[in-house]
Formats: sequence, structure tokens, C-alpha cells
Amino acid sequence: MSRQRIGVGLCGLGTVGSGVVTLLDRHARELSSRCGLALELVHIGARRDNPNCDTSRYKVSRDIFDVVSDPDVDILVELIGGTTTAFDLVQGALNAGKHVVTANKALMAARGNELAALAEENGVALRYEAAVAGGIPIIKTLRESLAANAIQSVAGIINGTGNFILTEMAKAGRDFEDVLAEAQALGYAEADPTFDIDGTDAAHKLVILATLAFGIPLNSEGPFTEGINSVAPEDLRFAAELGYVIKHLGIATRAGERVDLRVHPTLIPVDKQIATVDGVLNTVMIRSDGVGELVLVGPGAGALPTASAVCGDVADVAQHMARGIGDSLPVLGRPVSELQELATVPRGEVESEWYLRMVVADEPGAMADITRLLGDQDISIESLIQRPPETGSTQVSVVIVTDRAPGAAIERATSAIAALDATDGSITMLRIESFEAA
Amino acid sequence: MSRQRIGVGLCGLGTVGSGVVTLLDRHARELSSRCGLALELVHIGARRDNPNCDTSRYKVSRDIFDVVSDPDVDILVELIGGTTTAFDLVQGALNAGKHVVTANKALMAARGNELAALAEENGVALRYEAAVAGGIPIIKTLRESLAANAIQSVAGIINGTGNFILTEMAKAGRDFEDVLAEAQALGYAEADPTFDIDGTDAAHKLVILATLAFGIPLNSEGPFTEGINSVAPEDLRFAAELGYVIKHLGIATRAGERVDLRVHPTLIPVDKQIATVDGVLNTVMIRSDGVGELVLVGPGAGALPTASAVCGDVADVAQHMARGIGDSLPVLGRPVSELQELATVPRGEVESEWYLRMVVADEPGAMADITRLLGDQDISIESLIQRPPETGSTQVSVVIVTDRAPGAAIERATSAIAALDATDGSITMLRIESFEAA
Repeated sequence: MSRQRIGVGLCGLGTVGSGVVTLLDRHARELSSRCGLALELVHIGARRDNPNCDTSRYKVSRDIFDVVSDPDVDILVELIGGTTTAFDLVQGALNAGKHVVTANKALMAARGNELAALAEENGVALRYEAAVAGGIPIIKTLRESLAANAIQSVAGIINGTGNFILTEMAKAGRDFEDVLAEAQALGYAEADPTFDIDGTDAAHKLVILATLAFGIPLNSEGPFTEGINSVAPEDLRFAAELGYVIKHLGIATRAGERVDLRVHPTLIPVDKQIATVDGVLNTVMIRSDGVGELVLVGPGAGALPTASAVCGDVADVAQHMARGIGDSLPVLGRPVSELQELATVPRGEVESEWYLRMVVADEPGAMADITRLLGDQDISIESLIQRPPETGSTQVSVVIVTDRAPGAAIERATSAIAALDATDGSITMLRIESFEAA
Repeated sequence: MSRQRIGVGLCGLGTVGSGVVTLLDRHARELSSRCGLALELVHIGARRDNPNCDTSRYKVSRDIFDVVSDPDVDILVELIGGTTTAFDLVQGALNAGKHVVTANKALMAARGNELAALAEENGVALRYEAAVAGGIPIIKTLRESLAANAIQSVAGIINGTGNFILTEMAKAGRDFEDVLAEAQALGYAEADPTFDIDGTDAAHKLVILATLAFGIPLNSEGPFTEGINSVAPEDLRFAAELGYVIKHLGIATRAGERVDLRVHPTLIPVDKQIATVDGVLNTVMIRSDGVGELVLVGPGAGALPTASAVCGDVADVAQHMARGIGDSLPVLGRPVSELQELATVPRGEVESEWYLRMVVADEPGAMADITRLLGDQDISIESLIQRPPETGSTQVSVVIVTDRAPGAAIERATSAIAALDATDGSITMLRIESFEAA
């Protein structure tokens, strides 16, 4: 080959972008040695400077599309986020025959099918290790290492902000708003943290994991999604009392020819490994027929961990380029034409154990009514906590842990319970996952 | 390309070999779909049948070298073990322009440098994910995902048999020989378990990890190696009392321009994640400048987990072949010519906290002598347990946990203590690793 150098263009100079500049600079010699060719950052596109990132040694454009059209750019790194401009940018790069590395989970979840097809058509790479679980190599593990496995489930803590908030609430008994403000001050949460809190960010990531695990097209509408704002400090206390921690999980399960994708706060037995993953750490647990259970734990966010994933992708692509090929394997694990839709298990059919918390009038017969309404739906009670009323109060807190029951039965039972005069109509319902060996 | 099929040849039909037959057969359609070409097992070489593996559908040769010379074989899977015949086999395959996938850590540790160079010369792949930590994708993670990281240390439980034995000894208070016999009956330990017990197997794996982590040539003489047979049931009990578990760890650390490679039983604080990895599970913890701390946990042995790693490599190689290239990156992470020797930190300089157990005459002045001899070497005592003598005995068990001290100082102090009339001359010495954040 006559090529002397591989040029990297970087669009977006936020936290992760500045981390990419740092790692590419720090490990330039090493990366070039691995590739057998000089790997260089040649062009940065950013609408504004980042005071934490010295770009004086680089060509910088305010119009990020100038980076796409730069003939020196072979690999485009997209870190601007969102699904509109980012889509145009990535589409433009792929059409121009450039390889793309992105950390953009929203873009991959929403439009990854068309972008993957476009990459295949153009014989270029589209990589996105940094889109899920930061520094944890989960994309590579699913796409490559487990190629000869049938994946049964992928479950994990895949939003560091949410895990930080739940961990702090549990450890310090603090309120949601209080911890959220701290997370924002520490830079863990975005100025607009909606997607972290309502589960949208975790759902985007779960969609990507499910595609790689099950060979289905990306479907951003797929997951059932519940945010962490339904968890109150008293739920964390009751859970601890019952031997559980509450984590915000993404869970993708294959059941025969159907799949079940869910993102929700989940009670997990305190002795499970996943229960010990605190703060901004992420973890992903994969179950498959070959390996059995594989667990990965690492930082799910932050400048350098996420930049490490971006740069790992850049190194892979550069090493492929140095050997004259676009990529060694399809963007989504299988060629887009081989992806096959699988039906979603209807919500009401999905079985879990359940944690139910309600406020009940401290009067004769109330508990009998509640337990009878659960029994009417064939739901067994595994354990029950009734807190004596505070002095002067006429209400008690009741927490019920049920045996496994389908969502529809729980829905019917809790609707009936909420209609009782003895309750105030609101019931906190959280799923429990024990992750027993299959 | 005119190629219609990629042929796999398998040499060795033991536990892992039969797992490879199972997974390649079970996931044939899936693997072919990923590659875009049919991937088929075309030839098995095995000196004898495996009653647990039906090979009636395959061409089988008793002379394994017939598989190398079969023109239908594109990828040779070497699972015969050892460093002599296996070397000839792999060398022959690479020279014949065939790709090789191996699970052979002894071969890679002892002769991997020349084999990697040979693969580079011939433009073919040599893959060995299954050689370390079974189903855990640690080779790919170090070689690819962390390409843009400076690795500070790699530490882990990388011998499932040893971990099974220590776990059972700790949980049930059983003797080493007793648990070893069970491990052999369960098929976890080889008929000759020497390499599992004396640390040789873990040392081979650590050598491979260190090469990928630090860019040094494979050096099977490198690690300081101690087996698990130095751990007595009372050490496990005393450790638990002090808040530790004992695990057999491989630890590779980079210190400036030097490296430190060690395999030995290690006391770990009970609340560290690595301390919870029991039985035949393996775990590897990597510290690097980009990601920070990454932990992988999974089955370190067994037919299907190890076969999964073999087949993941086969799938990678097949996908490269389908695109007309040998491999996208160098066998050992860097081209062999770019690997650079680093000096080993002399044993006596390596600092640890230490666990010392000895039997001491229950007489005045004995403890004063022992603590004075430690003090003479500037070794501080962190905690001390002295067990009252059993009725009728004139001896006590003494366990001392020291603060960090260099190996040479501990060596001098324990030699002096062993020379005291009050001791019986034998001192159990185990290192403690707290894995504090750097």
C-alpha cells in the first residue's frame, strides 16, 4: 500500500471529545506501532472551544461538515450527539467512503439500521463501542467473542447517572432531587438529565445490546421503559430490610422466538454480584449457551473511559485500513439483510416477583381485603411488612413481596387494591429479579 | 472472491475439542450468516475416539498431521496441548499458509514469539483467546479494546482448578488432598494436576497477559511462581478472622520501565469484588490510564466456555478470510519486531503487606524476640493473633500481619525468626494485596 498515514477527524469537543484528543495524543506512537502506519488526529470540528482542551496543534473548523469533506480525514469520530445533525454527518461520511466511529446511542438506536446498511454498501466501518457502557467492551464481546453462542439474556446497569443517584439515595438516605443536583454539579448528569432519569438513555443502549445478542433489527420503540423517579427513599429502606438493593436495569431476554426488553428499577438480592456495582460504575451480565454467565464491570461514563472505547474502535478500523479492508465483520454483527424481527412478549405475560408498597388505613379488615384481592389473581405472598402507624396517624405502610406472577395478574390485583377505600389509590410497584441460574 | 466455503480442521478431541464440535455444529447456520460464507468443520485429527463426542459425520484421521496437509482445511484448531507435537503442528500449519486457533497456553508462553513471527511472515492469523481464562474475552479486551490505554496492571484468578480447591477448603474446612481428589472426580483437575497446583498453568497465562498489556516478548521464565499447596486450612481460617480471603492470583504490574510478574496465594480483603469470585470461576482485573478499572468474571474452564473462546476466534478469522485478509492486527498486539524487553523488578524490592504464621514456644520473651526481629528490619506490625495453647501443649500459633515491606526485609526478618529456639523453624509467608485505587 502507498498509504503513509491514517487521518482521524473529530466532530464534537465536549467531555468525551476532549478525552479522545488526550488519548490519541498520549498514545500516538503506540497506536501507530500497532497499525504499522502513523495514526493522526488531523481535523477537529467544534462549534465552540472547550476550555479544558488545548487544540492549538490541530486544524479546527467551526463547521463540523468541513471535517467530513476534508480529504485528509479517513476515519470520522462523531461525538456531537442527537439524531439530526449527527445523522447527516454520519451519513455524509459513510457516503464519502469514510469510516465512522460514534458514541451516539440515540442515533444508533433510532437510525442504526439505515446507517449500518449504508456502511455495508460503501464497504466502510461503522463502530459504536462507546455508545454502551462507556469503557466496558460490551459491543465487541457480543459482536465478536460470543459469535458462536446463542445469547439467552443480557442484563445490566447501563446508565451511570441513574446508578449514581440510586446508590447515593440508598447509602445516605437522601432525596432524589438532592442527589440529582449533586450529580449535575459533579458533571455526571447532563444539564437536561431527562433521558438519564426517565430511562430513555438506558433503553437506547438496551436496543443496541438486543440487536447484537439476538440478531434483530434495532428498534428504539422496543423496550418497556420506566425511570428511576418512581423510587422513593422508603423503597430503598424497605428493600434493604428485605435483603435487596434497587438498581435501574436494562434487561433483554430471548424466550423462544420472542424477545422481552425492559428498563426499570429492579430489586436484586443483595448477594448478587450485580447488586454490588455502585456509583457511576456500569455492569453487563450475559447468559449464553456456550460461556454460561459472563459479567463485565467498569466505568460507564466519563471522559477517558468513553474515549478509550472510541479510540479502541479507531485503532481497530485503522488496523483494518492498513490491511486494505473496510471492516472484518458486519456493523450489527450480521449483515443487515440477515437481521430478523422477533415478536415482543406482551407486557401482561412477563412474569416477575413483585414489590408492592402502599399506604393503608389502620382499620380492621383492610389487610384481609388486600391479601384476598391478590389471592383472587392467584398471586402468592412471599413476605409482608406492616409498619405500625406513627403516633397520631391512622395509616400504616404496607410492603408486599409476591411470588412470580404475570404482569397482567398484578395489574388486575393492584387496580382492585387501589380502588379500596382503605388505600389512598397509589401503589408503588417494582419488579424483583433474582437472576437464578436457568 | 471465488471461495465458497471456509474449512475448519480440529486436532485434539478431549473435553474442549468435543465442545468445539458441539458449538460449530449447533451454530453452523449462524456462523455462516455472520461470515457470508459457509463455515464447516471438515476434518478431525485425534489419536483416539472420545466416547462423549459423535464424530460419525466428519472425516477423522488418527494422524493429526493429516489435518494440516488437508487442502480443505483453511483454519487449524490446535487442542492437543503440550509444547512439542503441538509446536510442530502449529508451525506446519502456519508454514502451509493456514490460520491457527489454539487454546494452548504452555505453547504460547514457551514458543509464542517464534510462532507469532511465523504467522506474520506468512500473513496468517494465530489466535489464542481460549488459552487464558476460558470463556472470558480477556485476550481481545487487552489486544483490541484497550489499544489506546497504557496498562498499569493485570491481576486475576486465572486457574479454575486452584480456585475451586481454595474455595472448597475455605468453605468446608477441608484438606487440600481431599478437595483435590474431588476436583479430579468432577473433571476440573487433570489426572496430573501438577501445573494447576504449583502455579505453572497460571504463570503461562500471566506471561501471555503481560505481553499484551506491556508490549514485552513472551517470557515463560518471567513470573515468580508459588503454588496453592503452601496454604493450610488454618491459614484460610486465620485469614477469615482477619477479614481476608485467600485466592491464587496472577499479578502483572508495570512500574516505570520495569515489570513485576507474580503468581502466588494472596490474601485479599473480603469486600473486594475479586474476593467473591469462587469455585471454577475466573476473573481478571485490568487497570489502565484510559478506562481505569475493568473487571471481567466468567467460567475459566470447561468444555463449552473454552470452546466458545475457540469458536469466537474461528469466527473472527473466518470473517477476515471472507474479506481476503489474514488478520487485522498482529498476533501479540504489536508486530513481534516492536515488542520490547523490560527488566524485572528484583524479588527483594517488591513490596507487600505480609501474613506470617508460625508456631512458637509458649514461654516468656518469645514474642518480644519476634517483634524485635521484625522491628530490626523496619517492618511494622499491623495486627497480631496469638492463640492460647491447647491443653497440654507448650506451643502457641502466632499470626502476624505486617504493613508494607520489601520482600528482602521480610526474608531477613523471617530467617532470623526461624533461627530462634522458640520457633520450629518453619514460617508460612503469604502476601496481602489490597488493590487500593492507585
